[in-house]
Amino acid sequence: MNDHHEQREGTALPATLPVTDRTRHRRLREQGSLDRADLEAVLDAGFVCHLGVVVDGGPMVVPTVYGRDDTHLYLHGSVASRSLAADPDAPVCVTVTHIDGLILARSVFEHGVSYRSAMIHGVPRRVTDPEEKLRGLRLLTEHATPGQWDYARRPSRKELAATTLLALSLAEASVKVAVGPPDDGTGPDAALGIWAGNLPLTATWGAPVPDPLLPAGIEPPRHIAGRSGTRQG
Amino acid sequence: MNDHHEQREGTALPATLPVTDRTRHRRLREQGSLDRADLEAVLDAGFVCHLGVVVDGGPMVVPTVYGRDDTHLYLHGSVASRSLAADPDAPVCVTVTHIDGLILARSVFEHGVSYRSAMIHGVPRRVTDPEEKLRGLRLLTEHATPGQWDYARRPSRKELAATTLLALSLAEASVKVAVGPPDDGTGPDAALGIWAGNLPLTATWGAPVPDPLLPAGIEPPRHIAGRSGTRQG
Repeated sequence: MNDHHEQREGTALPATLPVTDRTRHRRLREQGSLDRADLEAVLDAGFVCHLGVVVDGGPMVVPTVYGRDDTHLYLHGSVASRSLAADPDAPVCVTVTHIDGLILARSVFEHGVSYRSAMIHGVPRRVTDPEEKLRGLRLLTEHATPGQWDYARRPSRKELAATTLLALSLAEASVKVAVGPPDDGTGPDAALGIWAGNLPLTATWGAPVPDPLLPAGIEPPRHIAGRSGTRQG
Repeated sequence: MNDHHEQREGTALPATLPVTDRTRHRRLREQGSLDRADLEAVLDAGFVCHLGVVVDGGPMVVPTVYGRDDTHLYLHGSVASRSLAADPDAPVCVTVTHIDGLILARSVFEHGVSYRSAMIHGVPRRVTDPEEKLRGLRLLTEHATPGQWDYARRPSRKELAATTLLALSLAEASVKVAVGPPDDGTGPDAALGIWAGNLPLTATWGAPVPDPLLPAGIEPPRHIAGRSGTRQG
């Protein structure tokens, strides 16, 4: 059975990821890792997750932003709130995926995608305490744009109240990484003379585009402008 | 109630997307579209979706590749197969999201993500007919790498049998696009002197990396090499 109970705040999580019915790696070509550091690396490389909830008996998958600390993921969750309102013990699944390119094989069958993907299962807790909500929003903001929490205007009491924030334990999680060349380089298809290899895909930050309403003379701060040309993910 | 019935093959879908309990746009800041062409543009810009299914009463969200024709999405679906095996009428939710950058506002509260996202609801059909499976795999292969179906070795009968392919009607779908500058350029925060605008994010194809096992003299074909430096999404 899956353990839906929420990990207590501040409790360190084991460095080895647990194997449960939901996190067991089932497919041959996926390279699963049980190292928590690999999970954290995948989470830290992105800022948008796909949050899966059950609404009216069916799945609903929505993209949303997230941040994390050592034990929890914090995420915006208006859709999850609807499912949580119906059932406070309703489990969610959060998946973060980075697409690193295409694996182009000699045969169509051996084609694949280079990717890194993390999956977290659990029952989220709605954050209501203003202090924790502020801390969660800071994690979320700094995760997407490091340096922005100290630069932008922080949330007012009213804005905090209008924000739905969820905390999800990182206790039950899995991580998979698919890298490397295609698998058919030593089989009979290798004699076909077909090119095979990887076509990499890279996400890069562009130059900041000022709001047309921004007065002249306000330059982007270094923590924003300095990102241009750097790789994301 | 949601209509789980599968759209018949070959029937043209209406150019206006339906509004159901599952596709209604609920959030203010999201710009929903009811134009099927907008849905198709978002689907055509990507090749990996997040597939949500219900397994043992809880959601499971997995990344998988897809292709499409005018009426259906075709996708690899080993996880969905497990949920379909338990219940052939089990609904799925497929979400395709492109992250176009960050919307950086004066206030943390008005921050957001520039994105395009499509969501499709329905009950997938397991494709068993070899002819249709071949056609679906062609759509899927050509969607990820145009030109590859005629270049690589096509699936054998045995490989076809080992591939789980699902067809999902595009009848019940929604599309949302968030673009443009932040919203707080005319409010009181505009006087704070804080830089605001967008930080774009672009995914670009890199140079092909040959399989180390590839014999010398086999160059990547134009449909692969020609992608380098071009934008994905």
